[in-house]
Amino acid sequence: MRLYTIETEGIEKAAAGGRNGMLFTVDSMGICVKDMNELINRFDELSPKMTAFLESAGEKDAVRSPYRIKAPIPVPLQDIICLGVNYREHMEETKDVIDFSDKTDAVYFSKRVNRANDPDGIIPVYDFVDSTDYEAELGVIIKKDALNVDTGDAADHILGYTIINDISARNLQFKHKQWYRGKSLDGYTPMGPCIVTADELGDIHNLDISCYVNGEKRQSSNTGYMITTVEEAVSELSRGMVLKAGTVISTGTPGGVAMGMKPPVYLKKGDVIRCEIKGIGCLENTMG
Amino acid sequence: MRLYTIETEGIEKAAAGGRNGMLFTVDSMGICVKDMNELINRFDELSPKMTAFLESAGEKDAVRSPYRIKAPIPVPLQDIICLGVNYREHMEETKDVIDFSDKTDAVYFSKRVNRANDPDGIIPVYDFVDSTDYEAELGVIIKKDALNVDTGDAADHILGYTIINDISARNLQFKHKQWYRGKSLDGYTPMGPCIVTADELGDIHNLDISCYVNGEKRQSSNTGYMITTVEEAVSELSRGMVLKAGTVISTGTPGGVAMGMKPPVYLKKGDVIRCEIKGIGCLENTMG
Repeated sequence: MRLYTIETEGIEKAAAGGRNGMLFTVDSMGICVKDMNELINRFDELSPKMTAFLESAGEKDAVRSPYRIKAPIPVPLQDIICLGVNYREHMEETKDVIDFSDKTDAVYFSKRVNRANDPDGIIPVYDFVDSTDYEAELGVIIKKDALNVDTGDAADHILGYTIINDISARNLQFKHKQWYRGKSLDGYTPMGPCIVTADELGDIHNLDISCYVNGEKRQSSNTGYMITTVEEAVSELSRGMVLKAGTVISTGTPGGVAMGMKPPVYLKKGDVIRCEIKGIGCLENTMG
Repeated sequence: MRLYTIETEGIEKAAAGGRNGMLFTVDSMGICVKDMNELINRFDELSPKMTAFLESAGEKDAVRSPYRIKAPIPVPLQDIICLGVNYREHMEETKDVIDFSDKTDAVYFSKRVNRANDPDGIIPVYDFVDSTDYEAELGVIIKKDALNVDTGDAADHILGYTIINDISARNLQFKHKQWYRGKSLDGYTPMGPCIVTADELGDIHNLDISCYVNGEKRQSSNTGYMITTVEEAVSELSRGMVLKAGTVISTGTPGGVAMGMKPPVYLKKGDVIRCEIKGIGCLENTMG
């Protein structure tokens, strides 16, 4: 199943995709939820009804008013947890700046997301940032509180996956030593276009992932090259810390970021950044 | 004014302190809020009514049922933002582990707080942590959304202050490179005993701050020794990132942490940790 948040007639609504690209709001299915966070929390309870509806639904039930696709989780419940340098190529390309040659464990940091940026949203240009970078990443959505979960059981706690562009202000990331502030500026977390449930996506460690800037391919890899897998990250992060339903984990970016280019070609006003993950779709944003 | 969250008859309620140590729930003042987060959001609107009530309130209005003082903000709206190495003594004592000799700017990181630990709460002992440390810190509570706020205007956005013990698993903090996971374990954020509003506290850069372990003084300093001041931190963090009402910022710890002792004397089961800040009170927790 593909889950969306759409805005139609000025209201944000949770929705799901059906055949032929049609979209159906969950309220048209007789399901009343406040937002995507509540839908995630109640997904195991609600998904049979949603599946049944989508199987029989036709054009008359689909959203017909004009709508806009928003970030699937417009306001995440907590800061997003990110994995750093989780693809070997990316570790190599950034080694002059980030010396993690002694890295043996996953790198975890977080990213404040006051509001996720939409699939067609504008990424702000800040006058105090001189090195805005893109990072195409596979995002994981937790559906059921996870505490001390074994790697083998991690999948039970995962609702599905989305695309995240972990926009980074490199000058802030490094001048403040810890990466938090350089990652957390408003508008720095484009997410979408939807959440694809785990059952529909298949092997999540065999998905092509890429990023284009103004049509030029900058990142091209496969989620199979992750160093710490999704299940390992969920398991480790859940040790001693409940990953609440609705938690978003961004799993790191492959090689090809601007910082790794010699010289770096950072993002500037007007640039169009398109992140793609096979099976999920494409997330396109403009600097402006 | 001193703001508390108390649990009485199984229910958590926002409350305020009056003369002679009496406590008054805000619902006894005719104010209906869901929790401290809502009270913070509406504080400018509600505080005149609260002040008037507290001036005339007597024993008959005070909480008489047995109650327990909880963390003033039991469930912060977002991860807590922390300043790292924000006292020079602490920078000195940790320089073998954290080489920030080239540090020119504030260090910001975050700490997930699924639920703040209570003033008398137990700090969990985890079998995968071999180096649990204390950090007494002044916590800042934002009352009004702050975006691009000048240093001189920062105070307008601050509700008040509390004590935070930024418990840290040093082995996790360093093995994962970024500090997030070593700071975010459940129970690692004792907070309290109350929020003291800014007007009552006076000069917040002249407060004695200390920490005792089993009665032995380990940390003893003054908030005047902060490198980045509260106003500077609020101003800088608000550049390009809205600090929403309810945001908690923990302003770093002075020298004297266990990691800085030679050899380090980390916390163990049964240890009692007491953090004190003059004008706010004392926050005492036990490892167990």
